[in-house]
Parts: sequence; C-alpha cells; structure tokens
Amino acid sequence: MKPSTSYHTQHAPLGAFASFTVGRHGARGGFGQSLSGPAQQNVFVGYRPAGESTWRLLPFFDPGPQRGAEAFTGESGTTAPPSRRALASEEFTRDLNWASDVWRSGSFTFGLATPWDRTPDPARSNKVTQQAAFAPCIYGWIEFDNHAGSGPVELVFGIGDSAHPWRPLNDTAADLVGFAHTHTLGYATRPSPEVEARQAFAFEQPAFRDHRGLHLLGPENALVFQVPTGARRRFPLALGFYQGGQVTSGLTARFHYTSLFRDLEEVLRYGLAAHRRRLQLAARRDAALARSSLSADQRWLIAQATHSYFGSTELLRRGGKPLWIVNEGEYRMLNTFDLTVDHLFFELAWFPWAVRDTLVLFRRRYAYRDTVHGPEGRRAAGGISFTHDMGVSNHFTPPGRSSYECRDLHGCFSHMAMEQLVNWICCAVTYARHTRDLAWLRREAATLRACARSLERRDDPDPQRRDGLLKWDSDRCGPEGSEITTYDSLDVSLGQARLNLYLQVKALAAWWLLEEAWAALGDRPEAKRARASADLLARTLEAKYDDQLAAFPAVFEGGNRSIILPAIEGLVFLLHLGREHLLRRRYPALLARLEEHLRTALQPGICLDATSGAWKISSTSTNTWFSKIALAQHVARRLFPHAMSPAARSADRVHADFQRGPLLGGHAMVDQFHSATSQPLGSLYYPRGVTSVLWLNERPSSTP
Amino acid sequence: MKPSTSYHTQHAPLGAFASFTVGRHGARGGFGQSLSGPAQQNVFVGYRPAGESTWRLLPFFDPGPQRGAEAFTGESGTTAPPSRRALASEEFTRDLNWASDVWRSGSFTFGLATPWDRTPDPARSNKVTQQAAFAPCIYGWIEFDNHAGSGPVELVFGIGDSAHPWRPLNDTAADLVGFAHTHTLGYATRPSPEVEARQAFAFEQPAFRDHRGLHLLGPENALVFQVPTGARRRFPLALGFYQGGQVTSGLTARFHYTSLFRDLEEVLRYGLAAHRRRLQLAARRDAALARSSLSADQRWLIAQATHSYFGSTELLRRGGKPLWIVNEGEYRMLNTFDLTVDHLFFELAWFPWAVRDTLVLFRRRYAYRDTVHGPEGRRAAGGISFTHDMGVSNHFTPPGRSSYECRDLHGCFSHMAMEQLVNWICCAVTYARHTRDLAWLRREAATLRACARSLERRDDPDPQRRDGLLKWDSDRCGPEGSEITTYDSLDVSLGQARLNLYLQVKALAAWWLLEEAWAALGDRPEAKRARASADLLARTLEAKYDDQLAAFPAVFEGGNRSIILPAIEGLVFLLHLGREHLLRRRYPALLARLEEHLRTALQPGICLDATSGAWKISSTSTNTWFSKIALAQHVARRLFPHAMSPAARSADRVHADFQRGPLLGGHAMVDQFHSATSQPLGSLYYPRGVTSVLWLNERPSSTP
Repeated sequence: MKPSTSYHTQHAPLGAFASFTVGRHGARGGFGQSLSGPAQQNVFVGYRPAGESTWRLLPFFDPGPQRGAEAFTGESGTTAPPSRRALASEEFTRDLNWASDVWRSGSFTFGLATPWDRTPDPARSNKVTQQAAFAPCIYGWIEFDNHAGSGPVELVFGIGDSAHPWRPLNDTAADLVGFAHTHTLGYATRPSPEVEARQAFAFEQPAFRDHRGLHLLGPENALVFQVPTGARRRFPLALGFYQGGQVTSGLTARFHYTSLFRDLEEVLRYGLAAHRRRLQLAARRDAALARSSLSADQRWLIAQATHSYFGSTELLRRGGKPLWIVNEGEYRMLNTFDLTVDHLFFELAWFPWAVRDTLVLFRRRYAYRDTVHGPEGRRAAGGISFTHDMGVSNHFTPPGRSSYECRDLHGCFSHMAMEQLVNWICCAVTYARHTRDLAWLRREAATLRACARSLERRDDPDPQRRDGLLKWDSDRCGPEGSEITTYDSLDVSLGQARLNLYLQVKALAAWWLLEEAWAALGDRPEAKRARASADLLARTLEAKYDDQLAAFPAVFEGGNRSIILPAIEGLVFLLHLGREHLLRRRYPALLARLEEHLRTALQPGICLDATSGAWKISSTSTNTWFSKIALAQHVARRLFPHAMSPAARSADRVHADFQRGPLLGGHAMVDQFHSATSQPLGSLYYPRGVTSVLWLNERPSSTP
Repeated sequence: MKPSTSYHTQHAPLGAFASFTVGRHGARGGFGQSLSGPAQQNVFVGYRPAGESTWRLLPFFDPGPQRGAEAFTGESGTTAPPSRRALASEEFTRDLNWASDVWRSGSFTFGLATPWDRTPDPARSNKVTQQAAFAPCIYGWIEFDNHAGSGPVELVFGIGDSAHPWRPLNDTAADLVGFAHTHTLGYATRPSPEVEARQAFAFEQPAFRDHRGLHLLGPENALVFQVPTGARRRFPLALGFYQGGQVTSGLTARFHYTSLFRDLEEVLRYGLAAHRRRLQLAARRDAALARSSLSADQRWLIAQATHSYFGSTELLRRGGKPLWIVNEGEYRMLNTFDLTVDHLFFELAWFPWAVRDTLVLFRRRYAYRDTVHGPEGRRAAGGISFTHDMGVSNHFTPPGRSSYECRDLHGCFSHMAMEQLVNWICCAVTYARHTRDLAWLRREAATLRACARSLERRDDPDPQRRDGLLKWDSDRCGPEGSEITTYDSLDVSLGQARLNLYLQVKALAAWWLLEEAWAALGDRPEAKRARASADLLARTLEAKYDDQLAAFPAVFEGGNRSIILPAIEGLVFLLHLGREHLLRRRYPALLARLEEHLRTALQPGICLDATSGAWKISSTSTNTWFSKIALAQHVARRLFPHAMSPAARSADRVHADFQRGPLLGGHAMVDQFHSATSQPLGSLYYPRGVTSVLWLNERPSSTP
C-alpha cells in the first residue's frame, strides 16, 4: 500500500518559532506564530482546469460551513456555495524531502522549500550571511504545464481566515502582490499581468468587488495566476513572518531577525529576490538525504522530524547578542535540557554555536548547587547541576529555576539533577571535541571540574562507598520526592533516576568524555580520576546483568525486571566522536552484555510491540517515544548489528506509518504515542525527532 | 420575573480596543485584545466557605473537560476532578451600572469598574491627566464580609487559559503579585501575607508545586486571598492591557497609551495606585445614571451599550499626534462613518475632540469627489462625499477608499455617498455648535461649502429641476449599482438611498445645520441658500405624505408602502442642539404629518413586532437594530410624545430582555436581531448602542 500523504508538516524558517503547517487532508493549518499546534486557516492551493468552473484544490481546508457574507447581510443564503473541490488522495502525489515538500497532480505542482546551510555564529558573521540563514521566510512555488492544454488555466494560492480579514500588501508596497495579517505574517509574489489578488467571501467567485476588484472584509484572500494555453508557468511565492518588539519576559529579548530586516515587507522582498538561490540550497539538502543509504521510510522520518525541529527554533537577540532557544514543541518550554542533548547531533552538524551558547546560558543562569540525600537517610552537600529548562511560553524563569520541576514528587514534574548534570557534560565535551573548540573547553574547565565532583558525590559523597552508580537524590526534590529522568511519563523502568540503567550508561559516557576533556586540557590527574570512575562504573554495571532475564534490569533496586532500550543510549556520544573501536576494546565484557540485553529486548512482546511491531522504549510501558527509538536504532545498528532481528529491522515502516496515520498525522511530528495503537500520548508538534539525523552517520554496511 | 443576569459585558478601558468580557453563565471570556468577540478564557471568581473544600465560583467558566496534566504524563486520570461549583443564578445578584458591574452572593462581592470622565484633548493635555483617562486598565475588587464567619474564608480571582501558560508577575516585578500573558495582558494586586499566587492544572488543588509553590506549566493561574474569621476584606485588582509597537498598517500607528506607560507592569502599578480614585469616579458615573428618570431597563440598556462602545474605542498615536478610532464591533471596520454619526452624542458629552479629529481625518484622507447619474440616464459631475469607513482590522485603506464599498451592487456593500455626505455635515455642525468651536468651523468652511454644493447636485445638478430630494447616485456604484444607506441589511424600505424618506429628513437637518453654520460664520448668502433648500425639501416632503397609508412611504418611487421609524431620525441633531421649538414653529405641517406617521408606525404589526412587542425599524423587515430603535425612541418621546402608544412605551423591557437573553447574551451588545425571535442577525459585540445615551437628555415629563 502506498504511504498516506495525509499528515501535517511544519514548514518553518530557522529561528523564527513559526510554521506554515499544511498537509493533513481536510484539516486547517497555515501560518502560525509560536503556537502549540497548527494554525486554523484554510489554505487554498490548486488550479481551475481550462473550461471548467470548479477549482481543484489540494485538501488543505475544512470544507465545512463558514460564516460568510451572512454576518453582514443578516440573511442566510447570501453566499453562493463555493465552486471548489478537494482533490482526493489518489489524485495527487506528495514528496516530503529534507528541505522541501512537493505535491503534484497531473500538470500541477505546488512546493514549499525550507532550506538551511552550515550557519556561522550570528555573533560573528556579516549581515548578508545572516539574512540568508535567518530570513523568517519560506520559499514556495506553484506551477502548471499547460503545453498540451486546450485553454488557459488558473492557479491559486490563498488563505481563508475567519478570525481576521487580511490586508492587501499592494496598498502599501507597490512591488509586492499578496496579503498579510497585520504586520506579522503573510505571503507575496511579484506583480505581473499574469497574477491577480483576490479578497472575498469565496475567492473563486468574488460577489463583491471594490474599485480594484477586492473586498477587504472578505475572510478569503488569494493570488490567482494565469497560465496561457500552450505555456508552462512557475510562480514564486514568499511566505513570511515578522514579530517585532520584545517577545520574551524574564530575560527580555527580540527576534534576532529584527536586526536583519525592517519589517514583513522587507522579508517578503528578500524571499522573492533570494528565491532561486534558496531553492537550489534546498535541492542540495534533498540530494544529500537521497544519497544516503537509508530506506524511504527512514528518509521520510528524518525529513518530517527536521521540519518540526525547525518549527521550534527561536533565535533571539538581547543586548546586541544572539540568544538561542529551541522550544519544546506543544509544551513550549525553553531549551529543555534533555531535548538539547538530543538536538545536539543536528546542531553540531549545522550550527554548533547554538550548542555552545545554550551550554553557556545553562552554566551562567540555570546552574545551581544543591544538597543531596542518599541511602540510609544520609545527607550531604551535593554539587552543581542544571535546570530542566529555562522557562515556558517565552518567559524565562528566574536564575537556577525551571518551569517544569516541582517538589515532593516521584514522577512527572519532579527534578532531574542527575539527568541534566550528565547532559551538560555530554553536550559540552561532545561539542568541544567535535568542533575542536579547545579554547572554549578551557574556559569551561572550572565548570567541568565542578561537574565531575558533583557526579562523584551523586554516586556517594564518601569516596570509600562509591560504586559508580548515581543514587543520591537532590534535596530540591523535597523530603517527599525523588529524581526522575527525561522519560518522565514512562513507568518506573525509566521514570526513576536513582540506580537507573539508562542514566548509569550515560554517566559512563560522561566519565569517558571527562577523561577526554582533561587529556585535551593537559590535566592528567583529573583524566586519571575520570577514567577510574568510568572503569569502576563499568565493572559495577557488568555485575548488574541478570542472566535469568538475559538483560540488565531497568532499575537496580526494588526487584525491577523491566527491559529498556535506553540501556544503550549513553553510548551515542562516543559513537558520534568515532570512539567505537576504543569502546569495544576498553569495555568488551560490558558491551557483550549490552548486546545480549539488546538481543533480548528486540523481540516481539519485549521492546517490540507485539501488535504493531513498533519499537518500545520499555518492556513494561506502552508509551513509546520516536526520538529515543531513533537514537536506540542508531546505536544498535552501529554497535550491535547482530542484535537487530528481522522484526526490529522492519519497524521503520511502522514508525513512519504511525506518524503519517490518522491518529498522529494532524500534529506534525509526535514524540509520544501508544506502541500498539499509535494513540498520541503527548509531545505533539515536537522537535526532538531530529535525533534521527544520527542515521546519516551510519555506513551502508551497518544498515543491512 | 427577575431579569436574567446571564449576559456578557465588555469591561473596557477607553481607547485600548480591548475588553475583559464576563457575565454569560457557563461561557468563557476574559482578556481580549482587538477581538471580534469574547476571548476564550475561563474566569475564576468566587470563594471557599469556611470549612468546606469546594469552591463556589461565579459561572464565568466552561465546566467541560480541559486538557490537563495528561498532556504531559500521557496518562488519563492524572488530574483530579476540580473542587469547584458554579453558583446557580439564584445564588447571586448582578448589578450592571454605567461604569461598574457588581456580583454579590451573600457576604461575597466581586466588582469591575470602567470609569471615565470628561477627557481633554490628548494633543493638548498633560501626562497625568492623560494617564487617568487612557490607562489601559480595568479596576476590579473582590470582597468578603467574614464578620459572622466560623472560620477563615478564601477568595479567588483567576484565569484558565488552555492556549498558553501565563507568567507570574512577581518573577520580574517585586511590587506586583499576579499573572500576565506575554507582555500584553494580565492582572495584579499588591503583595501581602493575605494573598497567594497559584499556578496549576487546577487552581484549587495544585498537584505540583515548585520552590515557591507555583507550577509554570499550569493553564490555570489565580490569586487566592485569605479573609480571617471575624474580619472583612476588600482586595483591589488591576486588569491591564499593553500592546507595544506598530498596531496599524496603511497609516502606521502605535497605541497612544504607549507614550504614557512603559509596559504592562507600569499599567498595573498605575491601576493599583489610582484604584480608589478611579472607583470614586465610577461611582459618580453610576450615580448620574441612577439619578436619571429612566426605567431600570433603560438604564441597563445604556450601561450595557456604553460598555460595548468602550470595547471598540482605539486611541492611536502617529507622528506624535493622537489618532482616534472606533472599531465597528465584530466587523472591526475603522471609524465607520454611519456609526460615528451615532456615537456623536456620547462623544460630544465626554470627548468632543474625538468627533473633531475623526471629521478632519475624513476630510483629509477619506473625502472624494465623484460623478453622478440621475433619472432618465442623465450624468453630471457630483461633488464631495466621504467613504463609509477608513479600513478594517487595523488596516487603513488608501485615501478616498473604504474597506466596505464595492461596485455594481444594489444592496449590502454598495456605496453610501449620500449617507456619508449628510453625516459629515450633521456631525461637523453639531460638533461646532455644541462645543462653540467657531474657529474650527471657520477652518472647515471650504469643506462645508463643498458639502452644500454636493448636496444640491445630488438633488439635481440642474437648479431648475431641484425639489430637495436626494436622487442622483454616485458613479462609484458603477453602471450596475445604486447607493444604499447605513441600513444595508434591511429590505428596500431602508436599503435604497435614492428618494429614501430616512435620508431626506436627515438632509433636511443637514440644510438646517448648514444654515446655522453660515449664520455663525457670517455668510448670509449661503445661510439664505441653505434655508431655501431646507424649505424646499420640507415642502416636497410634506406632499409625500400618503393619507391612505396614514404615513410617509419609505421610498418615494416604485410604489413602496413600507413604514419606517427612521423617518424621524434626522431630527435628532436639531433636538440635540435645543432647536425643538424652532423646529415646531418652522415646519408645523411637516411635523404634524411625521407625528401621524409615527402614530401609525407604533402599532403592533407595523413597527412594533406583533409577537414580541419589540420596536421594528421597518414595517416590512424583521431585522431590527437596537441603536436605531434607541434613537427613534428619543426623538419620539421628545418631539411626538402623543404618538407613543402604551405598547410602544412598554417595549424597553422587551429590548433589554432580548439583549440579556439566551440568543444575544453571549455577544455583549448586539445591534441587529430578529424582532420576533431575538435571533442575532449581525453586528455582535457592537458599539453603536451607545446612541441610547440620548435618553439622558429627556426631561422626566417626556417619559410619561
């Protein structure tokens, strides 16, 4: 069966926290600024065949009744039924690629491009470079090949917004034809005799026309293009966003692009002027993904995930300096650290300064020092850690505090001191080693040292009692609470941080990376101490393997018998830095057991859903997360290819079909869903799936 | 039966185009910026009785299910069912007054005040005066008398916003406790040990608390106040709005208040500092309305209408100068001229500079000169007139063009050259005579002269063929169209401008006012010419009386037999200037026939709805408009009290009950509704009803 094309995709510029969302059949979408889900506009894209009165439109609108002229005339039946028909899914194709999304129906084509490139540090690059990188603009085109046509054909791109009439751009900008909502968003093309602006209660048959043929009260606005008989035409579209003024509180900041563009009109002009170049760039990104040895479903997952990631990015400007944010999808938390650690791989490839800046902001404003409590009621000073996030909904929380973390809890919304401490180390060293930014690493040496001490003390403040495992909870949790991991909504197999398998393996990676950092910085005693910690932890871990279970238990206490995929997650940083062989050489016994663990896990009914075949994060939870599946797949294929059962290998199609399917397809990329039914369980419109770009690092041989 | 208290009211500062809308039972509302209807927040106001766990709240929220913690935890049943109960309508009273709205339930009181005063010209007054007048702030209070209580009582004021979590103001402002959505709206009180901020999935039982007891991801935010046993407490609330930056296009402008207040926090601080004074001012407005001899229903209608008027006002600032806008309710057209002419009476009383500035902007940017066509296919140069409006949804249309007027139409959305020409004259002279602003009148003399010529030519370009009646349509209507009146959605009885009774009587008033203007300016030839035009028109009108109909037909062509109330509308300007006796003396025959007309009209089945008893604008349409009913009532009671049948007199209760009723009560003031059923027919959330303040000019004797 052909994959479904009925899913929303976020078409989003880098750093504008804005998306033009379309694709779900029969659903609204359109231009959304900083929303938690799709906007609610009808999007009209299609054509009127020669000699026909009915428009054929891509199914980007809700065909239900709208409030039309009746609201003014007080009489029903004033608005004629519209002459439009939504194309059925079998009448068109859709091709979502890494930086483009193209629909074709016969001679008709509609495309949207969201290109990006390696992006230099906005604190150090020139305006021209930055305009290309950060123009809050999407590049569309609409096309018809009327060579064999029997008469002229009309094309349309338009918006139906029942909440506000839009304004015709040509009123104030002679070189643009299109429409805008206030100063904040809109679309345009260049004026020409072949393009006509329409504004009406129904774009295809304006019942009311002012002196230039528009009706400014009309909720529908559109560009209608003429394609003469025997001709082929391709019209460029610029879709832009512009939010001026302060957009955040706590730390007040503007959008960075406001220093590059004066207003929406300037953005749209730029979008049209740069159109050809930007489409070429998008084609390069698409080609790169196509060149990979990945399957069509894998490529689709990467493309869809990357689009949603861009929709959550927000580059601000404060005190003349850039301030990087990734919003947490529908939740809109700012720079959630346990997402930063997953976005790391994409960001290191394209804009590593974003990783660095985020780490610095965590260290400067969102670090804290706590006290901790451990087994047998012991209490002690803890050390440095970092908050879960920096705020929510464009509000920066006070220093050292997140929007998420609450007291006296054992589950969702508890603190994540262990998790974020490990995350800072893994991100910082992976960044510095990947980019060879030794100068930065040196500047952060004191923080790294504090992190190392903190990590040791969360094993045990008493050096004599250490076994490498993190087991001391932060007092920030309160007397009644305990720490959790990023897997907050899973069961205890991943919810509890203390003595959690996932976190211990990640801590092993942290020690390894610390060792590398100290070696690079020439601090041999610290390097030795880090290595000793890693070795101790590895030995302790090995011993936790349960032969009966043929796996590691998820939690090393309370008789837990869950089996989890994130057992191998922490190894990703070492793979990313190319330490695969070193790792195999240094910890062969542990790796052998992790391979056995994975072999056990990747059986139907364990960490493969028995009904659907989807990968499951935990054997004891049906809540599974795509971003983490993608990460586990990557580590498994690179490090433990023999554990990949045929069932495990064939799951990409299941994961892709879930995302494209009836339950998830209306929310762009969804991270959390039910492994059997694909019911969404949270994390809609979510950036984290971009972790799947790790797959591009896999050699063909590792994807058998 | 007690009147219903289940209706939305717009609580709105002057000039902020913003409303805090509450009152409809079981409906959402809350803070709305520039919306076409109520916002969609739950509003929590109420108390928790001593010793009880369930909160009793005014019914300002939708008790249906909300997306709560489940969106994060992925599990249903995470959020406990809330411990809240909406008070039933018999458990509380509501007292809507001119500048306040107060709900009482036993010892509990909640109030909102929107005071205003005579407001000096913002171009010429000092900052302190202007801050008082234009603070984008509403003044609330919450109160409990716990003298006889058996234990402490808690009070709450809060918001549930599923679209965005709000931010705690105390994070960034130590002297405020409350919540804000971004930088644009919010509420606050002063910090004290008796007030606690709450933010949670359910305000009454926060399941998750951070270090200061909040949970920033919670969609519900609230202030909870403690009232000790034996004490009485009254806590002030400031509810504020702040939209920075350019808010309009076409003419780009900011909110005027941005020159008076730096940000939302400053507005809220001001609101708390000025709270006592502003409540005293509100009490003065309330007392003035109470002192009138009007019935409770009339006073309620004035109060409700004034509230919706304020919600549509928008004072902007452009190039250092104020720019006054009244938005057209749900349609959000800017300064719709046929509303300006109805808002005139309120504005002349409180801020006459708004009338003047609007007239000047119409003359400078929205005047045009047209050609006209008349009977027998004759064509000629026309003259000056003015557009229907200045734009829509904060977009100013190009000079000389409105958002509304289209070509080739005979009904809704056609041009209104005659209507707006007459409106400019009536507004301008009424303004100048009422305020004695002779200097301004002199500056506008050339425009007045152009208006007089234009009025003559729309009777007939050939002086020999004039009879006083307007009958030449503007060529702006196109070859297929004809002019309409403000009564666009009524049937032909009022839709058609040409030879329309309503417009001819209004033209008579225009000629009278022109005569007064020329007399005041010392131009005796023009005064004489205007008087001659008035006399000619009066004589022609007299002759149009139809003895068989015992009324004037609505249109003097096509055999029209409709009977309309706006026959007397145009006389309102002369009454407002105190010309009642002069009018009776000058045109006794015409007045006698208008009295007969009205006597005929005010019979059930004619212009009183046979089913409901509501006044009907036209005998042949069931679409009736409150603003115009109010105007007709005023003229009828002052000029033709003997035509007021008992049925006509008792209709105020019907009109008020319609507005408070199930069909209209959710839309604040509604102008257009079905006269029998009260079905809304457009013009929701509408400012025009403020015309009812004319009733305050009636002497007790005229309201028998």
